[in-house]
This record gives sequence, structure tokens and C-alpha cells, in this order.
Amino acid sequence: MKTTEKISEAVVRRLPVYLRYLAELLGNGVQTVSSQDLGRRLDLNPAQIRKDLAYFGDFGKKGIGYDVEYLIEKIRHILKLDRDIAVVLVGAGNLGKALSNYNAYLNDNMRIVALFDSQPGIIGTAINNLTVQPMEEMVGTVQTQHVRVGIITVPGSEAQKVADDLVNAGVEAILSFAPAIIKVKDGVRVHYADFTTELQSLAFYLE
Amino acid sequence: MKTTEKISEAVVRRLPVYLRYLAELLGNGVQTVSSQDLGRRLDLNPAQIRKDLAYFGDFGKKGIGYDVEYLIEKIRHILKLDRDIAVVLVGAGNLGKALSNYNAYLNDNMRIVALFDSQPGIIGTAINNLTVQPMEEMVGTVQTQHVRVGIITVPGSEAQKVADDLVNAGVEAILSFAPAIIKVKDGVRVHYADFTTELQSLAFYLE
Repeated sequence: MKTTEKISEAVVRRLPVYLRYLAELLGNGVQTVSSQDLGRRLDLNPAQIRKDLAYFGDFGKKGIGYDVEYLIEKIRHILKLDRDIAVVLVGAGNLGKALSNYNAYLNDNMRIVALFDSQPGIIGTAINNLTVQPMEEMVGTVQTQHVRVGIITVPGSEAQKVADDLVNAGVEAILSFAPAIIKVKDGVRVHYADFTTELQSLAFYLE
Repeated sequence: MKTTEKISEAVVRRLPVYLRYLAELLGNGVQTVSSQDLGRRLDLNPAQIRKDLAYFGDFGKKGIGYDVEYLIEKIRHILKLDRDIAVVLVGAGNLGKALSNYNAYLNDNMRIVALFDSQPGIIGTAINNLTVQPMEEMVGTVQTQHVRVGIITVPGSEAQKVADDLVNAGVEAILSFAPAIIKVKDGVRVHYADFTTELQSLAFYLE
């Protein structure tokens, strides 16, 4: 797959949304779906959906639509979710706890395998079958368990240090919930899931 | 401001990021900033930044850059953050608790004014100076306090019902953390802050 460069982030962000709805359809025994059906359910233009999926190959059949199971398999492959991806979460406060609950929503291949915190009162507690480890063990765990993704839910002032440690240990992608801009070397991807930004950009659309 | 329609969501999402860094600069006594400086710090192309800000008027001065205080004021105005915006949060579990902590990061105008939950064990508890109210009081509170934005952190199966109640009570924009697609009437804006989607789209960028 050499398409990484030319596909816009907007398209990449829609693929998991397609995936979720397709999984729901499959669970209900639906075998084919049209771009019109997808569009109605996801509030997207059917032409946009056809364009998004056409980036990756010619999946649909005119007049019939997409084979649900085949499309799920293809999107999972495109998103690399058909491979094992180990994830660690750093910062086991309320947000970290909430996020570790989502392990159930992720598929079997992409999983949070370890939680870390610096607070003595939190280290050693069990959250969703994982025991919170001290920060000192982070680098070792990332290396031993071949962790590729790190989730940062520490305060903004600690985010860069945690990111540096994660990247030095071998993490290739970071999802940060900390209200801070993180600098990493080329080749490492950082996404921000920033609540304040989400909320402030929503205000723009108020009348 | 009649620009709502033509500005892409990507630009709107970058504005709060500019705002945060500009506020940091102002706090450090910096009076002017160039698009090069902004770009270096935010990992964005300076030409992109100039283009983003040009949507809203001619703020910069060639060779000098942007007046930090003036630009903050302008972006706050564009994002409508110079007006009072009351926000409610529905679902006071771990995620809701974590999000209500962010009240401190929001500015004085945009604030979470009430929390709601359906669990008897959570109702009545105090979180960040707010007492969790029963769901039955949600519609009344939204109406009395002129709430314009609702944050949904309930399970996916309850999200649509909560959204319906919020919109019927007068809420104009929703930020949902629930893993579910929400249908609302035209004119109401829904943004999704979906952890699974974030993490799955990040996997795409792994080698």
C-alpha cells in the first residue's frame, strides 16, 4: 500500500466511521449496502463515500452496492487493523480510566496493553484488568511488548517529556489528550484529541 | 459574520490551536508574531497560516507580523468566544468527570454550567463545584440557563435519546463522545470526539 501520502486526513478519519456502521450491518445480517444507504445513515453525500472508497480500489458493484463483509475486510486492511497493534496509555487519571474502558470497542488486534502513572496512590491499582505501572517501567514495557502507539493523558506540562520517552523507546504514533503542542522527530505521527479545541471550534457554528 | 458557510472545518479546527499559542505568547509578554514563528511552533506551513487568517480579514503587517493581542481578540470573535456560551454535560462517569476538569482551560465565557446522570449513586455528588443533577432536570436547566451546547458522554445506546432531549430543549450544538451516530434536525451541529475513531485512523499512519 503506497497510498499513504496522497490520501487526505479527512478521508482517513471517515474510514473508522464506515467501519463501525458496516460492522453493525454485518451483525444484523445485512450482506450488501449502497452508497446511498451509507450516506443516509452517516449524513454524508453518497458521491463523497464512493470517492473515499475508490481511493483504495473498485469495491462497489453498480446497482448492487458494496459487499459488507468484503468492505469491512478491505477497510480493516487499509487502516492496518488486521495486524496486531499494541498501545500504551500514560496517565491513569479520570480520563485515562475512561479511555481504558474503550478497549472493549477496539478490535482484538489493537489493544491497550499497559497503563502508566507517576502517582504513588494510582500505581498498582487495577483498571480493566490492567495494573497501573510506575512511569519508570514505561520504556522497558514499550520495548519488550513492541508497543507502536502511545496515548498521552498527563497534564500539559508533562506531555513533551512523556512523548520524548515514548518515541525514544520506539513508539511510532501518539494520540495526545494533553493541552500542549508536542514536538517529535520526522516519521512519528501525533494526533491531538483536545477537548477544548473541539468545544471552541463547535462555538463557531452557533448562530 | 456571514463567512460560516465557506470556511472549511479544517480551518475552524485550527483557530483554537492558534488561540492557545497566542495566549501563551501574550502571557510571556510577546507583542507581535510572524506566520513563520507560528508555523515553526505549530508544525504548520506559514503560507497555510496566512491563508487561514486571511479568511477573516487582513490582520498581518508585512515584515512585522501579527499583533498578538489583536489577533487573539479577532479569533475569539470569529469563534464567538467573546459571548457567553453555557454548556451542559450529560453522563458523569469517568469521562464526564475528566471533561468537567477542563472547565478551567475554557475561557470565562464558555463554561459547563450543569452535569447530569441517571445513576442514583452519582446524582447529588459534587464534581468541580457542580452537583450532578438527575436526567429529569436536564430539559428544565437547558431552558432556564439558556444552554446552547451539550456534551454527551453516555453509552452509545443512550446517546440518541439524550441528543433528542437536548435539541428539543433548545441546544444548538452537540459534542458527542458516545460511540454512536446521532441524528438531529437541520441547523443543529454535531461533532464527534470518538476515541476509537481517533485511534483507528492513527493506525493508518504506521509503517
